[in-house]
Amino acid sequence: MAFTRRSFMKGLGATGGAGLAYGAMSTLGLAPSTAAPARTFQPLAAGDLIGKVKGSHSVVVLGGGPAGLCSAFELQKAGYKVTVLEARTRPGGRVWTARGGSEETDLSGETQKCTFSEGHFYNVGATRIPQSHITLDYCRELGVEIQGFGNQNANTFVNYQSDTSLSGQSVTYRAAKADTFGYMSELLKKATDQGALDQVLSREDKDALSEFLSDFGDLSDDGRYLGSSRRGYDSEPGAGLNFGTEKKPFAMQEVIRSGIGRNFSFDFGYDQAMMMFTPVGGMDRIYYAFQDRIGTDNIVFGAEVTSMKNVSEGVTVEYTAGGSKKSITADYAICTIPPHLVGRLQNNLPGDVLTALKAAKPSSSGKLGIEYSRRWWETEDRIYGGASNTDKDISQIMFPYDHYNSDRGVVVAYYSSGKRQEAFESLTHRQRLAKAIAEGSEIHGEKYTRDISSSFSGSWRRTKYSESAWANWAGSGGSHGGAATPEYEKLLEPVDKIYFAGDHLSNAIAWQHGALTSARDVVTHIHERVAQEA
Amino acid sequence: MAFTRRSFMKGLGATGGAGLAYGAMSTLGLAPSTAAPARTFQPLAAGDLIGKVKGSHSVVVLGGGPAGLCSAFELQKAGYKVTVLEARTRPGGRVWTARGGSEETDLSGETQKCTFSEGHFYNVGATRIPQSHITLDYCRELGVEIQGFGNQNANTFVNYQSDTSLSGQSVTYRAAKADTFGYMSELLKKATDQGALDQVLSREDKDALSEFLSDFGDLSDDGRYLGSSRRGYDSEPGAGLNFGTEKKPFAMQEVIRSGIGRNFSFDFGYDQAMMMFTPVGGMDRIYYAFQDRIGTDNIVFGAEVTSMKNVSEGVTVEYTAGGSKKSITADYAICTIPPHLVGRLQNNLPGDVLTALKAAKPSSSGKLGIEYSRRWWETEDRIYGGASNTDKDISQIMFPYDHYNSDRGVVVAYYSSGKRQEAFESLTHRQRLAKAIAEGSEIHGEKYTRDISSSFSGSWRRTKYSESAWANWAGSGGSHGGAATPEYEKLLEPVDKIYFAGDHLSNAIAWQHGALTSARDVVTHIHERVAQEA
Repeated sequence: MAFTRRSFMKGLGATGGAGLAYGAMSTLGLAPSTAAPARTFQPLAAGDLIGKVKGSHSVVVLGGGPAGLCSAFELQKAGYKVTVLEARTRPGGRVWTARGGSEETDLSGETQKCTFSEGHFYNVGATRIPQSHITLDYCRELGVEIQGFGNQNANTFVNYQSDTSLSGQSVTYRAAKADTFGYMSELLKKATDQGALDQVLSREDKDALSEFLSDFGDLSDDGRYLGSSRRGYDSEPGAGLNFGTEKKPFAMQEVIRSGIGRNFSFDFGYDQAMMMFTPVGGMDRIYYAFQDRIGTDNIVFGAEVTSMKNVSEGVTVEYTAGGSKKSITADYAICTIPPHLVGRLQNNLPGDVLTALKAAKPSSSGKLGIEYSRRWWETEDRIYGGASNTDKDISQIMFPYDHYNSDRGVVVAYYSSGKRQEAFESLTHRQRLAKAIAEGSEIHGEKYTRDISSSFSGSWRRTKYSESAWANWAGSGGSHGGAATPEYEKLLEPVDKIYFAGDHLSNAIAWQHGALTSARDVVTHIHERVAQEA
Repeated sequence: MAFTRRSFMKGLGATGGAGLAYGAMSTLGLAPSTAAPARTFQPLAAGDLIGKVKGSHSVVVLGGGPAGLCSAFELQKAGYKVTVLEARTRPGGRVWTARGGSEETDLSGETQKCTFSEGHFYNVGATRIPQSHITLDYCRELGVEIQGFGNQNANTFVNYQSDTSLSGQSVTYRAAKADTFGYMSELLKKATDQGALDQVLSREDKDALSEFLSDFGDLSDDGRYLGSSRRGYDSEPGAGLNFGTEKKPFAMQEVIRSGIGRNFSFDFGYDQAMMMFTPVGGMDRIYYAFQDRIGTDNIVFGAEVTSMKNVSEGVTVEYTAGGSKKSITADYAICTIPPHLVGRLQNNLPGDVLTALKAAKPSSSGKLGIEYSRRWWETEDRIYGGASNTDKDISQIMFPYDHYNSDRGVVVAYYSSGKRQEAFESLTHRQRLAKAIAEGSEIHGEKYTRDISSSFSGSWRRTKYSESAWANWAGSGGSHGGAATPEYEKLLEPVDKIYFAGDHLSNAIAWQHGALTSARDVVTHIHERVAQEA
């Protein structure tokens, strides 16, 4: 029986209640309990290791990011001896939180030292967690405190170029939404009333739709959009006779042609809709918690892997650490190194596997954090969290979700990807900062240029050991990442005793959920295989 | 010069740079600085009391809720001797956080003792703060830590009666939104393509609108809505070949006629749009912080006011405290007692003022909190904060914004108003709980009935010293509350040395912002008057 994912899953189904396998899965918290509703996750089982592996079995894990540490954590629960080799001196991989003391030399040779004030930070990589993701279950199991993350904010701005008078103007999301929904509703109601949709809508449908549209668009009694308090006020309503001054709506043509609604669908997305969450104190808290549970004795930091080969005793991995060459041989290896970098290792992987690895194309993405000594976005723009969006290279400005109402904070001055990140990644940090401030001040005004304490940037294409933000599979598409291309499927299968894991082998690429579920699949596979071979 | 609000404001404008008045306002943080942009709040000035009142002036404040405590706090800054009389034994008024140890006997004579676990609570009254409200500025000034409040959650449910197959079914907000936006977009695109809106849309408008609708509705290339990953999955996508199983969309007619979109506009509202905030540990933290700053020496708790009269020396207020009758005379009084209760005091108010007070009609609203010993909403329904909505009497089920991922939590099993609250307020607590569980379990299933540790309810019509949730002004309407009815305007004027303050005298009724801005207006008025009379 070849140990491919498919045959494994099929095998389980075919043998029905395959006792040990099922027990093993329960041990790992991977099997659904009969009582649990189909739509829920099975909570991870921290104890009750009834399916513990018999005998002594070892696994070497290449990479101490989400996939690597989750693999090690789950394997340890099931009784495996695990060694994690991590090239960096910190856990988390692309989950990287920059804070005072962080230091990084990029592939261009530039060294940055982060001098953010005590307690302040931003996440250079992963920064948010949707409610559905297993990442939240690991936060629960590991005791990592979480808090809400602002993924939508009516008070943040959109600012886009267009051939309208709104071009280059900062408009609040609340105004953009009120006007867009207002005119959409007015137009649809007008068309409906005129009978244009009588072929698909009955009288009753039309009445119900009309009632909905009046509310959705805040329409007048005669079905027109004339503005709305939803847009906001020029002066805030208060007590007595201070009724506030409502902002006037933009004209319908301006709203439609300016494209100010182009980003509304962002937070309709399955993975982006509020509520969203993040660990208190930075995303890396999850991986420090994994590290604590796995034990630093079982993790070698500063270990640069040079070779990974299937051998008769299992898998031998060579690496350098502390200036000397080292080697480790284990029964199995889980390789979480970014796919486009695996080919650089000395290896005895088959040609089709090396070809498959090359189909995972590296991508550009990065962020720059500015620490301000004044939270002008809160006191002046009344923005507490969330992001402003633009078609400039900075793409977005993300406001901090921590230290609300305090005296300072770190703003993510850009989080861009693809070509818009390429405009930053070849620059020095000082140049990146200048460009970020120039573009940001066109959105939030001159105050954007003042009260800057320090800054720190990261560009994943230029970051050692990653050299990519996430993998784009040649021939695939869609926000859920990996379609089942032949190359993708190829890497789901082990090469003898070597397994590949990571978010690139999931349908949640660039999400921790993808890395964690990939790790769980691989661990399940190894555990099942060991049980069958016993 | 009569000291009415209008003449005061007019007077200021007429005299231009009225030195002292302006200085006084700056002291209180009420005057705009020349540098501040028009759309921002003036931060409250904590120090720098250059406009301190000359001589000895005293004010008695009736009521220790938001309006009363804010008045006292600001008056103290400006050098007034202030005494707050509060009938309850806690500060905050209708800002009331129920936690273990809370005890309340309602007007029906039923006593409830709250036994929630240490650290757990819910806010029986005010629970959320929009970014624009001055309440956040007071949190900053008072050092009250704030956190995000989930006012929107794609994973919560809607459940409404209708003549469709969706009647009484629980549908996630994400599914309801995806389907509604999808069909709306399909219909509007169809009408546009057919030329039904050519009178108002040019070719370019139509192209831009079509592009927007394709994205907004997640339409197919031929302009149809065929479902969307935005709706969610029957099984969560994971790694490898687990692409998840997308939930199928409902039919267009079902979506339109079921009314599942009736509540979408809630979070478009100026005061309800995300991001929303709340103090860590309960809304009452703000008023305990006010109390600490004002000093408990200056607040008489358990003081039931029986009489309030203008006298030659100022205002004399009689009250009972600790079983004995007491009296206090001050230069001025600020009365924050609910308007419909003021007439019960012995008083020498003019008849037109008593009539005006009666125009503020009391309203019904209330909540019931259930502490569960298991956070099933997170582990089973993947709901972290936010609320499910229904047309049942419970109206909504609000999930806790605190203690995420822990082992227990307090769910607000109903927050209803008007007739739907009247269905609860005449019941005993035990009956309320039974009704809440019966209705809630129809929305979230049988698990809603299990793992209940304790519960506590409050109904404002039945709550001593309030007897109302908020005031509804006869002849007024709209979410921003008070229109300028003659009665409303009447109460904006002082009656000799007696001033009225509270959210009922604002355009943010039922919001702390309304009470706080009303207090600031009254304090400004008194301070200006004292300066002019000096």
